[in-house]
Amino acid sequence: MPNITPEQMRFWSPDVRELEPYVPGEQPKIQNLLKLNTNENPYPPSPKVVAAVQAVLENSADALRLYPDPDATELKQAIATQQHVPVGQVFVGNGSDEVLAHIFKAFFVQDKPILYPDITYSFYPVYSQFFGISAQSKIIPLNDDFEIVGDDYKQPNGGIIITNPNAPTSIALGLSAIEEVLQANPDSVVLIDEAYVDFGAESAVSLVEKYDNLVVCQTTSKSRSLAGLRVGFAIAQPHLIAALEAVKNSFNSYPIDRFAIAAAVASFEDQDYFEAQCQKVIANREKLVAQLTELGFKVLPSSANFIFATLPDRDAGELATALREQGIIVRYFNKPRINQFLRITIGTDEQNQRLVDTLRNDILK
Amino acid sequence: MPNITPEQMRFWSPDVRELEPYVPGEQPKIQNLLKLNTNENPYPPSPKVVAAVQAVLENSADALRLYPDPDATELKQAIATQQHVPVGQVFVGNGSDEVLAHIFKAFFVQDKPILYPDITYSFYPVYSQFFGISAQSKIIPLNDDFEIVGDDYKQPNGGIIITNPNAPTSIALGLSAIEEVLQANPDSVVLIDEAYVDFGAESAVSLVEKYDNLVVCQTTSKSRSLAGLRVGFAIAQPHLIAALEAVKNSFNSYPIDRFAIAAAVASFEDQDYFEAQCQKVIANREKLVAQLTELGFKVLPSSANFIFATLPDRDAGELATALREQGIIVRYFNKPRINQFLRITIGTDEQNQRLVDTLRNDILK
Repeated sequence: MPNITPEQMRFWSPDVRELEPYVPGEQPKIQNLLKLNTNENPYPPSPKVVAAVQAVLENSADALRLYPDPDATELKQAIATQQHVPVGQVFVGNGSDEVLAHIFKAFFVQDKPILYPDITYSFYPVYSQFFGISAQSKIIPLNDDFEIVGDDYKQPNGGIIITNPNAPTSIALGLSAIEEVLQANPDSVVLIDEAYVDFGAESAVSLVEKYDNLVVCQTTSKSRSLAGLRVGFAIAQPHLIAALEAVKNSFNSYPIDRFAIAAAVASFEDQDYFEAQCQKVIANREKLVAQLTELGFKVLPSSANFIFATLPDRDAGELATALREQGIIVRYFNKPRINQFLRITIGTDEQNQRLVDTLRNDILK
Repeated sequence: MPNITPEQMRFWSPDVRELEPYVPGEQPKIQNLLKLNTNENPYPPSPKVVAAVQAVLENSADALRLYPDPDATELKQAIATQQHVPVGQVFVGNGSDEVLAHIFKAFFVQDKPILYPDITYSFYPVYSQFFGISAQSKIIPLNDDFEIVGDDYKQPNGGIIITNPNAPTSIALGLSAIEEVLQANPDSVVLIDEAYVDFGAESAVSLVEKYDNLVVCQTTSKSRSLAGLRVGFAIAQPHLIAALEAVKNSFNSYPIDRFAIAAAVASFEDQDYFEAQCQKVIANREKLVAQLTELGFKVLPSSANFIFATLPDRDAGELATALREQGIIVRYFNKPRINQFLRITIGTDEQNQRLVDTLRNDILK
């Protein structure tokens, strides 16, 4: 960021002067770096995704001159089919980050506090600030095992956010605990952020029909290997979807382009590939956890495509630096309670082996 | 929108209950319809755009699993080169609608009123409502010739928006008038929205170096035939770009996907194609204006890829309906002052001829 003089700052909206933006994991452009820092999928998307974009180029490149369908109906239909919900329960956006932003605006700009864990996706406090509700946010500590405790979310509130599995802890919460939270808060929207759900947690989409206060948010960036494409979605009853559409249509009419629509549709239609890739990531994770445990790491129980691990008697920040010197980047959060943990994205079997070998032979030797 | 009961409405943020979203021009899926209603370019994008997306598929489809560059540096560089500005003066977003939304948040959430014309892009009042500044908006009437009068923008304000050429009127404002507005308002951001500038108006980008209160917004949707892709941009001095980046990074880290980045870069690099297509649209416009004038239409002087036309003694709403019955859709705004005008997008020569023939032989006979 350039140096801004106080005089130049007069042009900024007063609230914007206070913003502390989200900092995404770095995307370095260095060759040969093993990137285990942003929870991307180590496997490519379905070959049908590539074929679908190829088909756009061959059959309708001229149509690039035309706006995409502002409702992305074809994409909503593909998601509805894959998720076994009516199409009227589907909302789509430019990545789940945009969907989450719209959810904040649609439901959480309330007088009563919104509740979310102390250790969770660090974009939530940023959205709170963006929409002017920081003062109405109440941060609920995870328990000593870094678990979300459903009972903590049974207090007056204007909205609840539970990430399941939680990030960066990787720990899943069971559906029965989520259902209790839904039942205890009949007048609040409960957002279940399921960015990582496909790697081993139970999705709350099955509860949408039953609870009129439930919004489930998912993304194609992780389990569908489409981080480069920017498609996220939410599932909820139509009276909540309508609020999201009102917000979206007051912000940007056409957030998803023609290539992204075609590619994401193809991904949702290829269920076999999707399931096989998720299983591969899960198998890789279990093997990596076993190897790291053998090296002395304590690894939290993961239902995600990443693990959260600590090595007793070794400073996590120093470990991250040592790994980086060996060309491996992992995510380190220098924050209270978690500054002795590393968040490590699950790679291919070969990538994970490189991590283990580097730790064993170069760093911990 | 589904019927929402008052009970269901309790979940919505109070402000969101009042939103009146923008309504984009319809995107009907009817074959053989001549679509002159959303100001899309009648010609396809540069062949190099298609080649660039093809290259992504061939060389780096696996990279779809990875997030795009959150800063879209390559795209900013291509825009900077084409616009002859330093890269630090470029901001990019998911279509100029998202860029405009971020501009509102970054600069216009002020105590003093923001000023914009009564007849202009109808998304501005929507953004005002979205960001809670409707009460601080002051609507300035165009003069009787539907022109923006620079002197009207020399009064206390918290920001100014001038669309140049204006929409839906198509009339351009000269740079000297814009410069006077910039000079008269040294403490306010002046936004020049140049969605249609490439079809005959003078761009204010040349003034960015000189004025620390100027933001120019453009889009690839019109003159670059990339409406289907969603890339817009703003040019301003770095202290204003920094506010836009802070807003963007508090909302969505990666709004532009890998295909859109590659395609837009290719478009900005093909200056010859771009200029030739703009010239074709301008030539088609001049011919269409002559033909419609011959049919009795009064056409406002257009510097855009559309015209704003009225036919004395014929109701414009009825004309729009009659055209639609003949398979031609144009945009009709049932609003004060302009409800006897049609906004007609410039098509190919053949498309424009179909419009003229339909009017002459079927509707006005």
